[in-house]
Amino acid sequence: MFTIEFRFENSAPVKAYAHEGENLLEVARKNNVAIDAPCSGNASCGKCRVRLIGGTLKSEKTRHITEEEYAEGWRLSCVSTISGDAEILVPDIASAYRSRMKVADLSTGKEIEIFEEVKQSIVEAGIELKNDFSLLELEMDSPSLDDTMPDNERLLRAVEAATGRSEIRMAYSALRKLPDALRKGDFKVQCVIRNLAAYVLLMDVIPMGEKATIGGLAIDIGTTTVSALLVDLETGKILAKGSTGNGQIRYGADVINRIIESTRVGGRKKLKKAIVDETLLPLIDGLCHEAKIPSDGIYRICVAGNTTMNHLLVGVNADPIRMEPYIPAFFETNSVFAVDLGIEVSSSTRVRIAPNVGSYVGGDITAGTLASGIWNRPEFSLFIDLGTNGELVFGNQDFLMTCACSAGPAFEGGDISCGMRATDGAIDSFRLDPATKEPILSVLGDPGQKPVGLCGSGIIDVICELFIHGIINAKGQIVSEGPRIHRNEYGIGSYVIAFKEDADSVKDVEITEVDIDNFIRAKGAIFSAINIMLSSLDFDVSMIDDVYVAGGIGSGINMKNAVTIGMLPDIPMEKYHYIGNSSLSGAYAILLSEQAMHKVKEIGRNMTYMELSTNPRYMDEFVAACFLPHTNASLFPTTEEALAANR
Amino acid sequence: MFTIEFRFENSAPVKAYAHEGENLLEVARKNNVAIDAPCSGNASCGKCRVRLIGGTLKSEKTRHITEEEYAEGWRLSCVSTISGDAEILVPDIASAYRSRMKVADLSTGKEIEIFEEVKQSIVEAGIELKNDFSLLELEMDSPSLDDTMPDNERLLRAVEAATGRSEIRMAYSALRKLPDALRKGDFKVQCVIRNLAAYVLLMDVIPMGEKATIGGLAIDIGTTTVSALLVDLETGKILAKGSTGNGQIRYGADVINRIIESTRVGGRKKLKKAIVDETLLPLIDGLCHEAKIPSDGIYRICVAGNTTMNHLLVGVNADPIRMEPYIPAFFETNSVFAVDLGIEVSSSTRVRIAPNVGSYVGGDITAGTLASGIWNRPEFSLFIDLGTNGELVFGNQDFLMTCACSAGPAFEGGDISCGMRATDGAIDSFRLDPATKEPILSVLGDPGQKPVGLCGSGIIDVICELFIHGIINAKGQIVSEGPRIHRNEYGIGSYVIAFKEDADSVKDVEITEVDIDNFIRAKGAIFSAINIMLSSLDFDVSMIDDVYVAGGIGSGINMKNAVTIGMLPDIPMEKYHYIGNSSLSGAYAILLSEQAMHKVKEIGRNMTYMELSTNPRYMDEFVAACFLPHTNASLFPTTEEALAANR
Repeated sequence: MFTIEFRFENSAPVKAYAHEGENLLEVARKNNVAIDAPCSGNASCGKCRVRLIGGTLKSEKTRHITEEEYAEGWRLSCVSTISGDAEILVPDIASAYRSRMKVADLSTGKEIEIFEEVKQSIVEAGIELKNDFSLLELEMDSPSLDDTMPDNERLLRAVEAATGRSEIRMAYSALRKLPDALRKGDFKVQCVIRNLAAYVLLMDVIPMGEKATIGGLAIDIGTTTVSALLVDLETGKILAKGSTGNGQIRYGADVINRIIESTRVGGRKKLKKAIVDETLLPLIDGLCHEAKIPSDGIYRICVAGNTTMNHLLVGVNADPIRMEPYIPAFFETNSVFAVDLGIEVSSSTRVRIAPNVGSYVGGDITAGTLASGIWNRPEFSLFIDLGTNGELVFGNQDFLMTCACSAGPAFEGGDISCGMRATDGAIDSFRLDPATKEPILSVLGDPGQKPVGLCGSGIIDVICELFIHGIINAKGQIVSEGPRIHRNEYGIGSYVIAFKEDADSVKDVEITEVDIDNFIRAKGAIFSAINIMLSSLDFDVSMIDDVYVAGGIGSGINMKNAVTIGMLPDIPMEKYHYIGNSSLSGAYAILLSEQAMHKVKEIGRNMTYMELSTNPRYMDEFVAACFLPHTNASLFPTTEEALAANR
Repeated sequence: MFTIEFRFENSAPVKAYAHEGENLLEVARKNNVAIDAPCSGNASCGKCRVRLIGGTLKSEKTRHITEEEYAEGWRLSCVSTISGDAEILVPDIASAYRSRMKVADLSTGKEIEIFEEVKQSIVEAGIELKNDFSLLELEMDSPSLDDTMPDNERLLRAVEAATGRSEIRMAYSALRKLPDALRKGDFKVQCVIRNLAAYVLLMDVIPMGEKATIGGLAIDIGTTTVSALLVDLETGKILAKGSTGNGQIRYGADVINRIIESTRVGGRKKLKKAIVDETLLPLIDGLCHEAKIPSDGIYRICVAGNTTMNHLLVGVNADPIRMEPYIPAFFETNSVFAVDLGIEVSSSTRVRIAPNVGSYVGGDITAGTLASGIWNRPEFSLFIDLGTNGELVFGNQDFLMTCACSAGPAFEGGDISCGMRATDGAIDSFRLDPATKEPILSVLGDPGQKPVGLCGSGIIDVICELFIHGIINAKGQIVSEGPRIHRNEYGIGSYVIAFKEDADSVKDVEITEVDIDNFIRAKGAIFSAINIMLSSLDFDVSMIDDVYVAGGIGSGINMKNAVTIGMLPDIPMEKYHYIGNSSLSGAYAILLSEQAMHKVKEIGRNMTYMELSTNPRYMDEFVAACFLPHTNASLFPTTEEALAANR
């Protein structure tokens, strides 16, 4: 038995004991030491770097560690095994990762414009953004020796008089605050109430004179990224917005690895803690702080997440989701309160969870479908959500069909060495000057902003341009030479998009063959899924009237380029619409509107779920789609033309 | 600034920092060091003894510490101030206190008999001991690739089919257990449900084959003692019973000191933790363990406690209770769930709190009144609950009047040097042999049990006999000499009830003049309250038809002796009835029966509350009653006769 001491930059060390030959990443996980490992220990992502600062460790050198770094003690923890006592420095990658992701959706003018359009279209589809919350101002007589009615009775009578309703229920958290609030407000208070059919629910009591806002949260819980809006439930106004990395990332990049991790001893608690305590609570705190409302001033929460995220959030066993016959614990549930999840707001604050429709199509898709409006039109539409999981919905006002595929985090800039979210410093579009073949970049941010990395739309452009100009081949391999092309000691090629002198970075902003391969697999997963779903309905791409693309890929997405590389079907460009983070927009609508909640349930119930993983054709289709644009080039005549034009 | 190190017998030391002149008890409290201090720092009880084992401490010697003890380092912490670094040994008195109280109500055959009689009388008064809980056995089809309905929908449909009800709600905690329970039971389960008017509430899911009991808890939360019954909600059977000291005791012996403590920074949390985490949770754990049911198998809790105990339990500001105009936050509340209090059982387990009727008459009295049956009879009855607070209810089926007085813990054996609860080793009755004047004791327990201390009924007998035989005078002073009479260095006399050779104790079992004085003040409080309440209604004692005496004083209470010393009115003995812990019996009924809950609310609403503390006559009446039997001897002709017979 050896002693392994994990050291951190900002916290106390953790002492662990391990046997010879144990895997270091496993030892770390067993001892609750957070090491970022999106590939979950397959030595493919290179993110689980730690530094050996004392003792010994048996560890291969991989392509992710340079000679110099190895000499400095850097190791990948997933390929390291215990061979003696060791002192390990763990970089705070998880928190670095989270801050890298800490960019609000709706942070650019373009995104806000898209959000407002989506909101408008929801209203036009007949969904009133109205709810049953209101703020009630009350004035009572102060008690005296001749009027010794207890506080709650005094208040309930005042509510009765003001509302004309006789059945009134008071939340525990309101009761707890009551004596202080009444006396602070000199028996004049503002009450947060819900006007329900059966009774009036009294959720909070705030002394008169203090600011009283009926706050609500719309949260999109993605496998990789979590985004939230703090909303005024009376006006619908967005009071604050924020995003962060999903703290569960350390337990694996995809839902399957998360589920596996959750089935270990104490795992369910660990995963719930990672999303609630480490992700949502700091996010909510930040939003409340920004909006200057108290952290318990949240009276409804609406969550849109995939089926696994929903299960891990609720703390219910998710294992049946990944095992045949793939059965979730719930599609719909109305029994979850915020306090059940450990979010200490009003004791009667409910968590609305957008309904799941299958093991791999969840509330993010029902919410997104609601936002897309395809359920309300006669035309045949395709809705595509490009996240860590890619999900598709096809149909119209009469039917809806859905399926999911695992795309990985590439669309959100994950799994890509210079990947980042669509925010300041992100290269969101890219082309090669036809004459000089030198890059022409567009960078998000103020004029003069230097590039930092690539967001999803930028990656599509880069791959498209390199392919069209013959710098990479159909397999994504670099087949050209030049000052922008490097090869490392393992022979892996890369293309420099911006030299470090021109970038806001300590190294070149580049895309590697590994990055390109990761992205091609992601786009291949999406395209093959579209293909299988349409053909199972005896449809082909020509019959699609509209395509709605959603996800964190960025509003700058060049649909033409996405088609050119074989990610989306080769149909006329005017049929494509980018609708931003539709899961978040849908959550916003469901948060605000009883009618939207009703509608999203209806959408979920009427959607037919197709399980891709049991489809015998899927693997073949996927392999065929992992080329630029596809092994069957006739599916992409536009690409053929572009290639011909550049020959 | 000096360093004070508190050392304990069974746990790690606590290091604290304090300024010169700070009070040691205060320093301990600030640092969460538990020192038993029932008198809350007034140097009167002598319980806050600690031992100085290093450094210095400025401390008076009081009558509670002998010369020898002082030399050994024993000090009263409430009269000690910081004068330098110090090392303090804190005896584990709080836990000793708790274990001293760890005797179930209903632990003797006599008590059980009384409980059964009370239960029978409740039923005879027309209260059906029935509720809406039941256990539903369900069998479902297992899911398959062709039948992928999620778990909760599968279960809800089965419940719908079995009950014929369409509106079904599932508790969060049931959802969380669902996938595991279904698979463990091979899709055969037992559900704990409530058949409510508006819907069926599904509270728990238990795999078929596992033991399923619908557990409920009836809890009497006294200022000094907490008693609980674990009950099968289907049958009413008592599965386990237990008592313990109220962990809040370290913050003061009476409600006023508890409230003051709760208003300090963090105080409300501290007091709630003391009753929930330190008192109820271990008690509940013990009961569940004894009954062999899982610790979350509690589906309803009914609490009967005084107004202050209820407020501190709920965690609501209790300060307005003690300040004019004495306003509680609530009389009735139905918004409290067990999880709100930190009792982790089913998320839909409600806490029924027997309603309060005034700032000093609470749910223990409404529950006790329900149990006494006085609300159902035409005769005028007096109900007296002898606890740390003494409460009275007078009336009949047409009216009820109530008031409270602060009696202190003497009736439960507290504040008495050899006091204890009515359990094995307690002297529960005492008389002097008319010839030899030697004590004749009756000791609870198996034959041969040696005496350990005095319970409430024993104290009454001792004081009565010593008074009648002229050993003490009307002021409670020892006015006789003999081998059983000692005086300490301060001249305080004591009477030896059992020499240590004959006792199960390391010292003599004795009663001191201080004990007698404490008890006389307690009985004086009770009698003066009775007197004032009756006269305010223009009644006198001769018009009382029945007296029901309740409380932890013990079933052996000799009513005749209680009358002789002037504690209870001098009326014919056959009018007196001892009904045990009526608060607990009432809680049991309310737990089991919707009708009882309804009735106790009605009782509470119809009861007129009289505030004694603002009554100008109270102090005079109290002083007059602090004699044996009373300054107005004509109120107690029977005592006169007894004294005459012994002269």
